[in-house]
Amino acid sequence: MSIKTNNTAVGGIIPPMVTPLLSDNLSLDSKGVNNLLEHIIAGGVHGVFVLGTTGESTSLSYKTREKLINESCKIVNGRIPVFVGITDTSIEESIQLASIAKKAGASYVVAAPPYYYGLGQEELYKYYWRLASSLPLPLFLYNMPSHTKINIDAKTVVRLSEHSNIVGLKDSSANTVYFQNLCFLLKSKPGFSLIVGPEEITAETILMGGKGGVNGGANMFPKLYVALYNAAIAKDLKRIEELQALVMDITTSIYTLGSYGSSYLKGVKGALSALGIIQSHIAPPFSCFDEKEMNEVVKNIKRIEIELNKVL
Amino acid sequence: MSIKTNNTAVGGIIPPMVTPLLSDNLSLDSKGVNNLLEHIIAGGVHGVFVLGTTGESTSLSYKTREKLINESCKIVNGRIPVFVGITDTSIEESIQLASIAKKAGASYVVAAPPYYYGLGQEELYKYYWRLASSLPLPLFLYNMPSHTKINIDAKTVVRLSEHSNIVGLKDSSANTVYFQNLCFLLKSKPGFSLIVGPEEITAETILMGGKGGVNGGANMFPKLYVALYNAAIAKDLKRIEELQALVMDITTSIYTLGSYGSSYLKGVKGALSALGIIQSHIAPPFSCFDEKEMNEVVKNIKRIEIELNKVL
Amino acid sequence: MSIKTNNTAVGGIIPPMVTPLLSDNLSLDSKGVNNLLEHIIAGGVHGVFVLGTTGESTSLSYKTREKLINESCKIVNGRIPVFVGITDTSIEESIQLASIAKKAGASYVVAAPPYYYGLGQEELYKYYWRLASSLPLPLFLYNMPSHTKINIDAKTVVRLSEHSNIVGLKDSSANTVYFQNLCFLLKSKPGFSLIVGPEEITAETILMGGKGGVNGGANMFPKLYVALYNAAIAKDLKRIEELQALVMDITTSIYTLGSYGSSYLKGVKGALSALGIIQSHIAPPFSCFDEKEMNEVVKNIKRIEIELNKVL
Amino acid sequence: MSIKTNNTAVGGIIPPMVTPLLSDNLSLDSKGVNNLLEHIIAGGVHGVFVLGTTGESTSLSYKTREKLINESCKIVNGRIPVFVGITDTSIEESIQLASIAKKAGASYVVAAPPYYYGLGQEELYKYYWRLASSLPLPLFLYNMPSHTKINIDAKTVVRLSEHSNIVGLKDSSANTVYFQNLCFLLKSKPGFSLIVGPEEITAETILMGGKGGVNGGANMFPKLYVALYNAAIAKDLKRIEELQALVMDITTSIYTLGSYGSSYLKGVKGALSALGIIQSHIAPPFSCFDEKEMNEVVKNIKRIEIELNKVL
Repeated sequence: MSIKTNNTAVGGIIPPMVTPLLSDNLSLDSKGVNNLLEHIIAGGVHGVFVLGTTGESTSLSYKTREKLINESCKIVNGRIPVFVGITDTSIEESIQLASIAKKAGASYVVAAPPYYYGLGQEELYKYYWRLASSLPLPLFLYNMPSHTKINIDAKTVVRLSEHSNIVGLKDSSANTVYFQNLCFLLKSKPGFSLIVGPEEITAETILMGGKGGVNGGANMFPKLYVALYNAAIAKDLKRIEELQALVMDITTSIYTLGSYGSSYLKGVKGALSALGIIQSHIAPPFSCFDEKEMNEVVKNIKRIEIELNKVL
Repeated sequence: MSIKTNNTAVGGIIPPMVTPLLSDNLSLDSKGVNNLLEHIIAGGVHGVFVLGTTGESTSLSYKTREKLINESCKIVNGRIPVFVGITDTSIEESIQLASIAKKAGASYVVAAPPYYYGLGQEELYKYYWRLASSLPLPLFLYNMPSHTKINIDAKTVVRLSEHSNIVGLKDSSANTVYFQNLCFLLKSKPGFSLIVGPEEITAETILMGGKGGVNGGANMFPKLYVALYNAAIAKDLKRIEELQALVMDITTSIYTLGSYGSSYLKGVKGALSALGIIQSHIAPPFSCFDEKEMNEVVKNIKRIEIELNKVL
Repeated sequence: MSIKTNNTAVGGIIPPMVTPLLSDNLSLDSKGVNNLLEHIIAGGVHGVFVLGTTGESTSLSYKTREKLINESCKIVNGRIPVFVGITDTSIEESIQLASIAKKAGASYVVAAPPYYYGLGQEELYKYYWRLASSLPLPLFLYNMPSHTKINIDAKTVVRLSEHSNIVGLKDSSANTVYFQNLCFLLKSKPGFSLIVGPEEITAETILMGGKGGVNGGANMFPKLYVALYNAAIAKDLKRIEELQALVMDITTSIYTLGSYGSSYLKGVKGALSALGIIQSHIAPPFSCFDEKEMNEVVKNIKRIEIELNKVL
Repeated sequence: MSIKTNNTAVGGIIPPMVTPLLSDNLSLDSKGVNNLLEHIIAGGVHGVFVLGTTGESTSLSYKTREKLINESCKIVNGRIPVFVGITDTSIEESIQLASIAKKAGASYVVAAPPYYYGLGQEELYKYYWRLASSLPLPLFLYNMPSHTKINIDAKTVVRLSEHSNIVGLKDSSANTVYFQNLCFLLKSKPGFSLIVGPEEITAETILMGGKGGVNGGANMFPKLYVALYNAAIAKDLKRIEELQALVMDITTSIYTLGSYGSSYLKGVKGALSALGIIQSHIAPPFSCFDEKEMNEVVKNIKRIEIELNKVL
C-alpha cells in the first residue's frame, strides 16, 4: 500500500494512535499497542501517527515515548509509514525523539510549535527552519493553536515550505478558511501535503484540495474513515453523505460526554475499551470516564457498530 | 427570484452590504447605496444583508442605521429579500431596529449575541429566546465569536431552533467542525437554514449541507459568488474548482493588505471604490487604505476582473 | 467637597452607580435613582460615575441612558462631580451622549474602546484622539480589556495623555504591573489621573501613586470605601489592613455567588435590594439572582453590616 | 540567613535564575552559573529559583536541567534555599526532576500546571494533589495563566492548601485582585506562602500580605530587590517610593526593547551580559538581542547602575 496520492504528496487516513496504558501508573500496555496497531492496519489506513495530541504524547515520560516508538515501528514493520510526534518545548528533546524515530524505522516526524512561551511568527519561522535542518527525517508542521497558543500563519507556512525537509502540514485548527488559504497559496507545490486533523472535515477538505485526515476516530473504526477518504478522492458525493452521517454520529455521541475539554480523549479510549481493543486508562492530568459515562459510551458504540456494518 | 432552496430553508448568496459613506463625517452616501444595491441585484444574488459586520453596523449612529434600512428597502422594492442586522448590546435597541425593518418591508432580522459582557450559554439562550419572542420578523442567529467573545454552542442552537421565530443561523466562526455539528444535529429540521459567512468556505459547506453564503466579496463580484453557489448546489466539482480559485485570489490579494484586522473591510471598500461603485470611506475606529495600499488594490482588482471575465 | 487631590489630579472614591430598574421591562426606576444617589452622596464619595460597566450602560436603550443622565445630574445638583459613561461602538453616539451630559451639567465623560471590532494600538490611538477632540467635556480613558478585547497599552496612554482634553484613565484590568507602568511613565504629568476599578486594589494602588477607585461596592457601603481611601492617602497601613478585610469579605461573600461572570452585577444589585435602597432587576442579557442565591446575599449583607458598624 | 518571615511562611527575594548558556548549541555555561549564583547570593537574596520561566526551563533538555540542578545546589551549598522548577506536561518527568532536586540538596520544588491540554479546575486540583503526594520535597504552586492557559482559581488554591506537602503559591498573573483574594481566603493559614512573580508589584503585595518576590531583575541587581523587600516588610513607604522608581526604570528601559513577548528574557540576559556576569545566549525558540538592541541595553544598564549606587 502506498501513501502517495496524486502529485506525490503524502496523504490518506493516518490515525493519531492513542497510547494504550496498563493503569494509572502510566506503564505502556505493549499488548494493547499490538492489538490497536493490528486493528488499524487491518482497516486499511495509509499510515499511523504515534505521539500526537490524541496519543497523549506530552503527558508521557520520555522513556515511555521511546518505548512506544520502538514497539510501534517493530509491529508495523514497514507495512505502513509511521509518523512520530516530536512536539516539544525543548528543541534538543525534539531532535532526540526524531533520532530515535529514525533508528526505529519511522518515515516522518511531526512537530507542533513549542507551546510554553508565546511566540511571534518570525520566531516561529526561525524555530521551524532550525528544527527541520537538524532532523534525520522529513518534517510535518502541526498547527494546533488551541493547545500551543499560536497559529502557524499561512504566510509562515508558505515560507517554511521552501525548506527541503518540510513536506507538509497537519492542521487541527478546524478553521477551513485558513486551510483554503493554504491550499491556494501552495498550489504550485503539489508535493507539499496539507492534511486536516478533525475527522468531521476530512471529506470536505479533500474535495477542496486536502490530502487526507489524521482522524482520531480511525483508532476505533479505521474502515469508516478509509471509506470516507476513498469516496472523497473519487468525488462520490452520495457515498460521502452516507458515511459523513456516521462520522458525525460518532462525534456527537462519543466525544462530548462529560463536561471537560478532555471528553474527546476519554471518548476514544472509552470506546476502544468497549470494543475490547485496549484498556481505557488515561495519563494525568486527565482520568478516564466514570462508570455512568462509560455505560453511555458502551451503549452508543454498540449502536454505531450496527450502523457501520450496514454501510461498510 | 426565490430564496427558498430545497426543504424550504432560506439560502443562496446574500451579500453583507458595505455601508457607503460620503466622507469621514459619516453621512450615508445615498447615491452609493443605490449604485451598490443595483450592482448586486444585477448580479443575481438571493438576498441582501444590511447592517452586518461588513456593513459596519456597530460603527454607525442609529439615525444612519434607520436611514440605511429605509433607503435600502425602498431601492430593493421587493426584488430580493432584505435581511437587517439588529445586533446590539441593548435588547430594546435591537427590537427598535427590527420594528423599523418591519415597517420598511424587510424580510428577516439577524442578531449576533450582545457583545460587551461575557455571557454563559444559558444566559445566551434566554437572551435569544426573549429577543425572538419580541420581534416582528423572523430571526437569524449570527455566530461571530471573534467579535462577540462567545460561541453560540451547537447545543444552544439546537435548543433555540425550537423557537418558531428563529429560522436559521449565519456562522462566521470559520470553524467547519462546528458547522458540521450543526448540520448533523439539525438534520431533522430542514427548514432551519445554516449559512456561512466566509466566502472561502461557501462551496464546501454547501456540498456538506449548508444553504448559502453571506459573502463580502459579493459586494464587488456578485456574479462570481452566485455562480459558485449554483455550482455547489449542482454538485459540479469541476466548476467549483475553477471558481474557488478566483474566490481565493480575491481573498489573498484584496483582503490582506496592511497590518490590521481591518484589512478585510478596507479591502472590500477599496475595491468597490476602484470599481467606481462607491467611495472608500470607513467609519471610525477604522480608516480607509492609504495611497500605496490603494494602488495595490487597484492593480489587483483589474487583474481579477480580467480573470473573472474569462470564466463567467 | 473637592475631588482634586494632590497635584490637582482628579481622584477619590467615585462609585460606578448601578442603574435602578423598575422591572424586567427595563424602565428606569427614578425613585431608586434618587435613593441610591442620596445614599452614596451621604457616604462622602468624591464623585459618581453613571453608565459604566456596573451601570449596565451598554444594556440600556439610548432613551434610558439620556433619562438617567438628566435625572442623576438634577439630583446631584453640583454636590459632587458626575462622570458619564459614553462608551459606544459608534463615535457619533458617544459624542451625542457627551453632549447630553454637558447640557445636564456633568463634569467628565468616560469611554472604553469601541468593543465590537478588534483594533490595533494605532487605530485605538487615532480613535481616542478624534473622540477627545470632538467632546464638550474632559475625557477619561477606560481600560477594560476583558470586555473590549483590547488593552490600551501603556505607550498608547502616554501618547494620548498629550491631548489637552484627556485627563485620566480608569483601569479595570486588575493588572497592577500595567498600572505601575502607567504611574512611572506619567510621573511628569501629575495632573493626569490614574484610577483603578476593582475595589480590592484601591488601597494598594493609591499607596503606589494611584488617585482613587471607581469601586462598585461603594454603591452599598460608600463610607467603607471613603474610609479606605482616606487611610490610603494618609498612608495609615494599620487602618488599611482593618478596612481591606471588610472589602475582601464583600468580594468573597457577595460577588461570587452563582456560576456566571454576571455574579458581580447580580451581587451588587441583590445587596442593594437587601439593604432596601433599590430593586434588584437587571437588564438582559442578565437576570437577577434566584431566591436561594438572594437568601445567601441577605444573610451575608447583614453579617457585613454588623462588622462595618464596628469599624466605621 | 533565614527565609522564614513572620508566621513561618517562606518568603523574601528569590530570584528566578536565568540559565547561562555557552552558545547557540545550548550547552550549560558552568562558569556563568557560578558567577551568577555568587553575584545574587552576595546581593543578600533569601533563596534562588532555578528552572523557572525566566530560567528557560521548558526550552532546555532534561540532561541540561539535571546538570543545572546539580551544579547550582553544589555552588549554593546550603547558603540559601534552592527552589527547583519541575513544571512539565508529564507528571513522571516532574517527579523525576524533583527526585534529582532532592538528591542534590534543594529545598523546594515549584510546578506550574501542565500546559499543553486545556484543563478544568477539578482536573487541575486532582493533578496537583496527586503530584504533591508523589514528591520528596515541599511544593510551591505556580500560577502562570499567560503561558499555561489556565488560572489556578482562588478556590482551587484554597482546596490545595489542605495538602500537607503544598506550602505556597508563586503568582505570576500580575492580577492583584486575584492575589488579594488569596491573601484573604488563606488568612487562617499563615504558613502558606503567597509570593508574586512580577517585580513591579512586589512592594505593594508585601504591604497587603504577600511574602516576597520571585523577581527577574534580581539576577542583575539583587541588592535593589532585597532593599525593596526590606522596606516593604518595614512598611517604610518613603524608601519604597525611592526604590520602586528604580525598579520601574529597569522595567521600562530593559524589558521592552524589540517587538516580541521575548523582550523580557532578552533584556535580562542582555543586561547580565552587559554587566559582565554571563553571556547573553538564549535557547530556541528565542534568540538574543541584535547589536542595535544590545547597544541600547548597555547604555541603559550603565545609567541605571549609576542611579542604583546613589540609593543603595
